[in-house]
Amino acid sequence: MPIEIPDVVIDRLPVYYRLLSRLENEGRSVISSQELGDELGVTPAQIRKDLSYFGRFGKQGRGYSVPRLAEELRFILGLDRRWRVVVVGIGRLGRAISSYPGFEGQGFDIVGRYDTAPGIVGTTLDGAEIFDAARLEADLRRAPVDIGIVAVTADAAQAVADTLVRGGVRAILNYTPARVQVPEDVELKHINPVVFLQSMTYHLKLRQRDRAHAE
Amino acid sequence: MPIEIPDVVIDRLPVYYRLLSRLENEGRSVISSQELGDELGVTPAQIRKDLSYFGRFGKQGRGYSVPRLAEELRFILGLDRRWRVVVVGIGRLGRAISSYPGFEGQGFDIVGRYDTAPGIVGTTLDGAEIFDAARLEADLRRAPVDIGIVAVTADAAQAVADTLVRGGVRAILNYTPARVQVPEDVELKHINPVVFLQSMTYHLKLRQRDRAHAE
Repeated sequence: MPIEIPDVVIDRLPVYYRLLSRLENEGRSVISSQELGDELGVTPAQIRKDLSYFGRFGKQGRGYSVPRLAEELRFILGLDRRWRVVVVGIGRLGRAISSYPGFEGQGFDIVGRYDTAPGIVGTTLDGAEIFDAARLEADLRRAPVDIGIVAVTADAAQAVADTLVRGGVRAILNYTPARVQVPEDVELKHINPVVFLQSMTYHLKLRQRDRAHAE
Repeated sequence: MPIEIPDVVIDRLPVYYRLLSRLENEGRSVISSQELGDELGVTPAQIRKDLSYFGRFGKQGRGYSVPRLAEELRFILGLDRRWRVVVVGIGRLGRAISSYPGFEGQGFDIVGRYDTAPGIVGTTLDGAEIFDAARLEADLRRAPVDIGIVAVTADAAQAVADTLVRGGVRAILNYTPARVQVPEDVELKHINPVVFLQSMTYHLKLRQRDRAHAE
């Protein structure tokens, strides 16, 4: 089993999959690593190296089979089945996440939305009732969930993560700026917009410096 | 100038910086690559390699100076100055982004919020007026902006990106699922929650398979 694959490679696979899925829908049958690289803004060597972790998809000089590679990535990434997701915290961010149009089509079913605020609990969002977070753990035990999305305030994030873990959730996507601790057998990812902005300002600053040097 | 640094390394620097900034606030003066690695869940070798791109921060066997490394990362990442940001699209997601508590403290000032909906334009959000997107380009020309955050619907994303680019914005953070094209000298990042979920389901699936094999 391919268990030694670096996380940075795993993180790029969904991006490859998105492109291949689009090409598949457009009826493309073959694509070269050069074309894949051009589309994604990475080098063909990087693409060949990344995909080599998962076996031999391409034939030397003939490119990759688009449907075979898409199918294989679907399997590798677990997109050949559906995943049950809960969103905890239905403030502005939780509302935006719950309504994100891309989840359902990719196999992610939001099966529960939870909050603690009396003005929010019991109301509906996109036709689904928002439940009291007090019943989250019991709900998880009754009907297991794969992924928990945490969109509460930073100070509540750890308690929510603990509840999810106690309820058997093994993957948590943390949208709060809080550092959250989970057991080793739980997958944890952060979405922090500041981190994205900071890697862009690195490039902006470098360019401004280059321009200043050139003048 | 360090212009050959891989993007994957750049993307990790904000994570290093966050940790070092916290350690600095806690009064730590020195940290080893082993401890940094333990905190961040990566190997010490990875940390030494990443930081080696930016010069010699550590002394063999003595660890890194926390304040010096934090200061250097602040400079490298452009966090020693302030950046002007606009948010375009003030629906659920745009509201959540505009209210994100982490921006201001990290040097990112949201100087404009724009939408097109008659019911939204002219209202206020956290005390700031929401402007008509029709005036975005003129506003950008009058008072240049560094970063544009796109939180409109997918079908409007390219037009908004084009307007931002015409207005001189050189970094775009795209929250829509749409693929957006920008000129080569514009930095572009996507935040797509599905991509995060998919790299987690890879790990979930692998574990389930391992468990099935073990049984």
